[in-house]
Amino acid sequence: MSQERTEIGQLGEFGLIEHLTKNIELKNASSLLGVGDDAAVIDHFGKQTVVSTDLLLEGVHFDLMYTPLKHLGYKSVVVNLSDIYAMNATPTQILMSVGISNRFSVEAVTEFYEGVYAACEKYGVDLIGGDTTASQKGFMISVTAIGEVTPDKFVKRSTAQKGDLVCVSGDLGAAYVGLLFLEREKKIFLEAPGVQPDLEEESYVVGRLLKPEARKDIIEFLDDAEIRPTAMMDISDGLSSDILHLCKQSNLGCMLYEEKLPIAEAMRNAAFKFEIDPTACALSGGEDYELLFTVSQADYEKLTLNEQISVVGYLTESEAGTHIQTKGGSKHAITAQGWNHYKK
Amino acid sequence: MSQERTEIGQLGEFGLIEHLTKNIELKNASSLLGVGDDAAVIDHFGKQTVVSTDLLLEGVHFDLMYTPLKHLGYKSVVVNLSDIYAMNATPTQILMSVGISNRFSVEAVTEFYEGVYAACEKYGVDLIGGDTTASQKGFMISVTAIGEVTPDKFVKRSTAQKGDLVCVSGDLGAAYVGLLFLEREKKIFLEAPGVQPDLEEESYVVGRLLKPEARKDIIEFLDDAEIRPTAMMDISDGLSSDILHLCKQSNLGCMLYEEKLPIAEAMRNAAFKFEIDPTACALSGGEDYELLFTVSQADYEKLTLNEQISVVGYLTESEAGTHIQTKGGSKHAITAQGWNHYKK
Repeated sequence: MSQERTEIGQLGEFGLIEHLTKNIELKNASSLLGVGDDAAVIDHFGKQTVVSTDLLLEGVHFDLMYTPLKHLGYKSVVVNLSDIYAMNATPTQILMSVGISNRFSVEAVTEFYEGVYAACEKYGVDLIGGDTTASQKGFMISVTAIGEVTPDKFVKRSTAQKGDLVCVSGDLGAAYVGLLFLEREKKIFLEAPGVQPDLEEESYVVGRLLKPEARKDIIEFLDDAEIRPTAMMDISDGLSSDILHLCKQSNLGCMLYEEKLPIAEAMRNAAFKFEIDPTACALSGGEDYELLFTVSQADYEKLTLNEQISVVGYLTESEAGTHIQTKGGSKHAITAQGWNHYKK
Repeated sequence: MSQERTEIGQLGEFGLIEHLTKNIELKNASSLLGVGDDAAVIDHFGKQTVVSTDLLLEGVHFDLMYTPLKHLGYKSVVVNLSDIYAMNATPTQILMSVGISNRFSVEAVTEFYEGVYAACEKYGVDLIGGDTTASQKGFMISVTAIGEVTPDKFVKRSTAQKGDLVCVSGDLGAAYVGLLFLEREKKIFLEAPGVQPDLEEESYVVGRLLKPEARKDIIEFLDDAEIRPTAMMDISDGLSSDILHLCKQSNLGCMLYEEKLPIAEAMRNAAFKFEIDPTACALSGGEDYELLFTVSQADYEKLTLNEQISVVGYLTESEAGTHIQTKGGSKHAITAQGWNHYKK
């Protein structure tokens, strides 16, 4: 972080917004009017508009002790774009609101926005509006992502068919193990502030937590390969929780296979250091931001062209329930153990 | 408030969302897909999409000691719709995110949503998505309002012309005086909890603060009367602050007249009880959610048909500055004294 410290009060709300948005250049033809008016204006020129929003709170969704503000800005955008891709749509704009206490300097907020703009740049979206307000305590982020989709090409969670293959992109569980590492290092630091954390070996899992990416590439691959998923969602709460949502909304059951779950070698090694089961992390970890989707069996051959896609099971009739078969051959009911911030 | 208290943890995040959204019926043809997927889908069928967002925080934007939750839900929606109308657009959907600490029961959150749905009903908009999360402390609200406008009929702040008339809807300053009353009653209550507040006489100003309305009627009138404002915005920070924005963005100056400012009799009487100047309240009060717009002088005759519209001045060239002429005939520079949450 920069050495300088400018108080937000020196700029005021309008000065801060001006400072944070002065370099915006709208990239999308659909962004007709951006920051600086009562509202922004979009023209998707015959396409349908897809919109999603998230509220992220300090102490609940992120810990600034180990989350660099630039990463936080980047991630805040990416997790919303992930929702747009999960509809089989292309994100085009975001609105970004932040609540900031006077604990944060202008430089700190600027750093956060550097991450926001880096994500906008990478995914080709425009920041077209938002709100900036003082908070009494803590940092709050609300992001609304807007995208477009060719009429009626959006993919819901509720339209999977019996017999469809269950697919996931990338690998699962690493972000959760990254969180365990960072929580452990935080505890060590609080007990002995002199000790420098060594996370070099864990850069993969820590990176998965702090700087996730949305699977634009998978949506593009599916489009190029002419595979239309029958249902799709992103994995934010953990595969087990999310497949249960998909099955419930499609009124189906499923059979997954432990041996098919995509687990990165780095995650497996890291999980062993905590003496926890990599499979449990892959099933219940959360914050993967991978895509969970179902395709017709007829598309199986095409899927094999992309090594970033794993077929982890198939859908059954609802009455058969939702199960996973372990490597040892036994069958377990899948239970939702995703993150629940209201759990005691 | 209801006597029952159900802890949010009993329902969990998904149970709470289900409870709060189970009765939604989408009213607009443009709302293709609502709550329950990764994102919502809208088709404005050739119209342009207008979008605005606000972040409202307990202790900064509202005080739950004197703000009923149902009113808060209503107001949260209305202030966003006001931004959409201020673009000369029609709101069609909202996304509502709330951060809630376990201080709030399911019943309390339900009450908040009753207000949200009441506003949706009144203004004909659909709740199509959002986010619900635990907060460590306090109540946070993020609303995104979405609307539609006939291509290129949206009205910006930056397009006013020299000589245009400056108009405002309704009356100004009452919400601010309402706030003064509520703050005074809160202080009295904290010092002597037995004393019942008597706000009967102040119901107008208190109502203006707690339950504002968006000026849908004015937008409809302007459309019916074929008056196209040359610039428009809503008055949220106070007329003086907001006219300065409009002038700056249109690169013009203005001359306003104190005697033309619309001041309700109830506000004038209430202001005198606090020994404050009604004109100062009208200029700097904030939270009016009236429309500030400019029209060509040729439209003056048509405007007189609507007694809810006051012509308060006209636009000058930028070099002439931004002034108000008092009833006594003297000329003062307009200064922004709107609310600035970062001010010490």
